[in-house]
Amino acid sequence: MSTSKGGGGAGGGGGGKKKKEVKKETKLGMAYKKDDNFGEWYSEVVVNSEMIEYYDISGCYILRPWAMEIWELLKEFFDAEIKKLKLKPYYFPLFVTENVLQKEKDHIEGFAPEVAWVTKSGKSDLEAPIAIRPTSETVIRLWQCHQVLQILELYRRIYEEFLAVPVSKGRKSEMEKFAGGLYTTSVEAFIPNTGRGIQGATSHCLGQNFAKMFDITFENEKGERSMVWQNSWAYTTRSIGVMVMTHGDDKGLVLPPKVAPIQVIVIPVPFKDADTTAIKGACESTVYTLNQAGVRADLDARENYSPGWKYSQWEMKGVPLRIEIGPKDLANKQVRIVRRDNGTKVDIPSTDLVEQVRVLLDGIQVNLLETAKQKRDACIAPISTWSEFTEALNDKKLILAPWCDEEEVEKDVKARTKGELGAAKTLCTPFDQPDLPSGTVCFASGKPATKWSFWGRSY
Amino acid sequence: MSTSKGGGGAGGGGGGKKKKEVKKETKLGMAYKKDDNFGEWYSEVVVNSEMIEYYDISGCYILRPWAMEIWELLKEFFDAEIKKLKLKPYYFPLFVTENVLQKEKDHIEGFAPEVAWVTKSGKSDLEAPIAIRPTSETVIRLWQCHQVLQILELYRRIYEEFLAVPVSKGRKSEMEKFAGGLYTTSVEAFIPNTGRGIQGATSHCLGQNFAKMFDITFENEKGERSMVWQNSWAYTTRSIGVMVMTHGDDKGLVLPPKVAPIQVIVIPVPFKDADTTAIKGACESTVYTLNQAGVRADLDARENYSPGWKYSQWEMKGVPLRIEIGPKDLANKQVRIVRRDNGTKVDIPSTDLVEQVRVLLDGIQVNLLETAKQKRDACIAPISTWSEFTEALNDKKLILAPWCDEEEVEKDVKARTKGELGAAKTLCTPFDQPDLPSGTVCFASGKPATKWSFWGRSY
Repeated sequence: MSTSKGGGGAGGGGGGKKKKEVKKETKLGMAYKKDDNFGEWYSEVVVNSEMIEYYDISGCYILRPWAMEIWELLKEFFDAEIKKLKLKPYYFPLFVTENVLQKEKDHIEGFAPEVAWVTKSGKSDLEAPIAIRPTSETVIRLWQCHQVLQILELYRRIYEEFLAVPVSKGRKSEMEKFAGGLYTTSVEAFIPNTGRGIQGATSHCLGQNFAKMFDITFENEKGERSMVWQNSWAYTTRSIGVMVMTHGDDKGLVLPPKVAPIQVIVIPVPFKDADTTAIKGACESTVYTLNQAGVRADLDARENYSPGWKYSQWEMKGVPLRIEIGPKDLANKQVRIVRRDNGTKVDIPSTDLVEQVRVLLDGIQVNLLETAKQKRDACIAPISTWSEFTEALNDKKLILAPWCDEEEVEKDVKARTKGELGAAKTLCTPFDQPDLPSGTVCFASGKPATKWSFWGRSY
Repeated sequence: MSTSKGGGGAGGGGGGKKKKEVKKETKLGMAYKKDDNFGEWYSEVVVNSEMIEYYDISGCYILRPWAMEIWELLKEFFDAEIKKLKLKPYYFPLFVTENVLQKEKDHIEGFAPEVAWVTKSGKSDLEAPIAIRPTSETVIRLWQCHQVLQILELYRRIYEEFLAVPVSKGRKSEMEKFAGGLYTTSVEAFIPNTGRGIQGATSHCLGQNFAKMFDITFENEKGERSMVWQNSWAYTTRSIGVMVMTHGDDKGLVLPPKVAPIQVIVIPVPFKDADTTAIKGACESTVYTLNQAGVRADLDARENYSPGWKYSQWEMKGVPLRIEIGPKDLANKQVRIVRRDNGTKVDIPSTDLVEQVRVLLDGIQVNLLETAKQKRDACIAPISTWSEFTEALNDKKLILAPWCDEEEVEKDVKARTKGELGAAKTLCTPFDQPDLPSGTVCFASGKPATKWSFWGRSY
């Protein structure tokens, strides 16, 4: 937590994390650039924008309000949609016994290396170790069926309509599918800066495999017991990370309006002899008017920070629109609006405030998706031979390749591309398939190709 | 999970729990009575009403939709209220290091015996054990202040306005307060059947104790750093358990309308030669009309269960109102409505449906709270001497006693009342204090009394 950034910020003590001290007199700055050092840039953005605080246990972090409020907006959409599908909520314990976890062999093999085991309670050893449930398929014994693709479409909408991140819907290969399931579908995003794919969310059809293992039956309409068909799906706060990677720039976070906790930040710009009370009044009235119209607007009235410092902080936090009101604006009955996504500035009459803000917010939402789509599409490289494949991989492309769909061939490609940056693998076989003329052969095996699949390195 | 109760119910396999097979031809029944064997009665209600499924790890259970939907209704109210207080959401990791957990000595002493320790990841031992965070005060380093009583009032509203459970607001004794905090407030409920108090929810003022321990400062308006004042509060699904204990009867659960996932269940009552299509149509129209009016109504159209069996099941599940529609009702353009709380039946004209249902639901909500309040109040026993105290304790009373507020005296009372049923202790010192004439002495020590406190056995 950067203690000096906000009036109410708290400095943590025993956490063992790095503290970055930024003097409030200086401008807020990013030390890293997105194109130069993507990894450090990303850490800096999520910490400085106050989304995340690192934690003293590896792999754990604290989600701060700026991230949680985005998550709540996504959840609100998704929860309402799954209610429409008549799905019912369950709540399952954190723990699972070794016995139950072991029941589905293929499944547990996929998770075993990372399972956390509780062996002690207070100072006493437990009779048998208990696992922290790594995933829920062995304890949750009733799912609704036939909804794999309905849910996948909701995930697409979360990415494209809310987070403005373009994704491809498709099916995972046998090697990459959910351990123990029948097949896995996913939405896949791509980060042009690093040339890596990133799995956005998955929706699995488990078939009757778990039902057989755990004897999960139901009474059908004829009054007979039959095995259930099951599905399983999840999305996580990773989606917010993908959004950060996609839209962020060297000034920090860039938030799509639909998920921005604050869509418009209003900043008073006082000037020596100007009437500060009138300026403050105009700012308050602007926030009030926007809030009444359903726009998430807020006022930054802090007096111990300069307007310029505030501009930088809210740019860092990715707020889509900034409104500045100074003496000149007051005299002209206007406000100045600055877009975070492209920096353009417009003066608009106060009477047009709500309408213009709405138009701008909608425009930013569309623009972010369009821009990201163009960048992503520019990286798609349809290839047909092994040498084209390796060249495209070196060029950080999202590779679309004709494939024979054999597990051995995918293993072979992995082995042949192993290296510092990680091996290439299938990302997904997109539902949206280009033509595959008969006679097309697999780029890796030379056998007849049966489909186009996306390949690349991934997160 | 009672597999034979619903068409879609699933029977679990490897869970090791008892399965109760209830033939669908028989009437659903409760094996235990609330007055005879409260503990078994309670387990039977929460399982048979499909709120909870027991789990193969002690202390863990699965919350099924019938409990989760109640929980979601409570959350919806509470989350909206805390948003109004401008509180911000954080999300903290599940794990905490031993080092951080140990920092606040008094605090950890209160929790240490029950802490679960993760010592292995997969097959490897961890370098240092990691605790599953038993509570959050040592890692969460920023709270809002001054809201202890605002939150406590929200908890009172959850219990009284939603769950129809009467509670007393008050302050915990030094012995019973939150370990490491400054003081603890709570809402306390009482279960007349067992004569036990039950803590409904707590709201703690932590003071600056944790702030000093972890060096949690903020920048005040003068630009200086000062220690934060902190609070901490929580309510859990225990609140649903208290509701079950308060209103349930020998037919099962009784739900207050405000939290009932289904407020009105509509059941067709076909008769030999009657027009079943018309009956079904009238039922569907009734559900539709109620839903349109914002009433949570549902239709039980299952054909492989008799109306009588359905009545019993929905009574077991505690649905506030049942509507029966048979040939006679159809002919008379009426519906029959049966109340769950008192069993009264009324026939009402279909034209008055929405208005009458609303009146009945409101009436049930009020009646449940009033009835529970009368039963609770009948148990309150103001006493002044030790012999009155022990007599009242044996009579399962909620004891209101003048007390000197000394920790040693509370310890002494605990020691002197130790026994099979557990020792007596303070429940809270109610904010609503009766007169305390000067000269009143403590029932246990004979020293001058400073307050009236509730005493009793508790859950």
